[in-house]
Amino acid sequence: MVALVIATRLHALRNATARMSEKDLFLIAELPGFTPQIGRLVSMLNYVRSTTLSAVAGLGVGELDYLHDAQSNSIGTLLLHIAAAEAGYQAATFYGRGLDEEEKQAWGAALDLGERARREIRGHELDYYVNRLEHVRGKTLAELGRRTDEWLDDWTSSGSGQKVNNYFKWFHVFGHEINHRGQIRWLRVRAAGPPS
Amino acid sequence: MVALVIATRLHALRNATARMSEKDLFLIAELPGFTPQIGRLVSMLNYVRSTTLSAVAGLGVGELDYLHDAQSNSIGTLLLHIAAAEAGYQAATFYGRGLDEEEKQAWGAALDLGERARREIRGHELDYYVNRLEHVRGKTLAELGRRTDEWLDDWTSSGSGQKVNNYFKWFHVFGHEINHRGQIRWLRVRAAGPPS
Repeated sequence: MVALVIATRLHALRNATARMSEKDLFLIAELPGFTPQIGRLVSMLNYVRSTTLSAVAGLGVGELDYLHDAQSNSIGTLLLHIAAAEAGYQAATFYGRGLDEEEKQAWGAALDLGERARREIRGHELDYYVNRLEHVRGKTLAELGRRTDEWLDDWTSSGSGQKVNNYFKWFHVFGHEINHRGQIRWLRVRAAGPPS
Repeated sequence: MVALVIATRLHALRNATARMSEKDLFLIAELPGFTPQIGRLVSMLNYVRSTTLSAVAGLGVGELDYLHDAQSNSIGTLLLHIAAAEAGYQAATFYGRGLDEEEKQAWGAALDLGERARREIRGHELDYYVNRLEHVRGKTLAELGRRTDEWLDDWTSSGSGQKVNNYFKWFHVFGHEINHRGQIRWLRVRAAGPPS
């Protein structure tokens, strides 16, 4: 099983960003430029991103816009939603606020998915989505590089009194990405149509 | 966004296992009974499991067996596949081997999914799947509780010469679970049929 995962990921890396080190992609470990715990977190963020890019590699506009049924989100919309969620957690954890009006406008329908997203998020090439993802990720890595392991333990209180620490919030960012990547993989098979 | 996540998870916890502490579910942090790094890893494993159980709470046999199309896996099969993958990584990381013949037989079609799984994995109540998941997880936690942070850094070499450490392998276990949980959520909406 491990061997299969690795073969798939090596393939993915040919299309992945230069920010990730191919050599160490299967190590959750310290990383240069980050404190020890943040390095492990960034290892996970990097690996997950490589799998997302792999899951969409080579898709055309028709496949990115494909709607499986009336409730479905397109693959393109899911990619933009992944980026928008990360931007939301940047605001929450780096600046202690929600998205401001300008940011909400910039992300638009990608924040909430649904009917408006089905109508508005269409017609873009893959590069458009990958660029949005990479722009947000660049900021995430720059900000994480300025923080310490102690910051990961900082917590805020949820409305119901639960402690939520920064490590959880960033764990949630990549978990959210994997969740939608699972849907993207499922949709990709159907978007391609039946084998000819 | 954080508030929404928390509300959803608190709901989930009412159905989740007693092994998780409701108080600390949103902290990725040290945990009693585990070394510091392993505690963080177990925090992630626990949280992901709570979301999986939440995603299937209340499903009946018909929904667990639902096949969306000829290529789909049922929700029940995906649950068993999550447990089987975890058992595979137990063998790999705790005992340095693949699944043996007896284990392969016990997991059967859940390992590979596909046509055989569609035929064979059917007719079980939710409890059946949850019990399989919990049985495997109990062993995972017991074994992780006997290991140290240094063990997480131990690596094996993939066929192509990549280093893969134990932290990566267990990160992959919960990432694999989230991936299929994303598909389970998607399928659950369709398995319930159109709103009446």
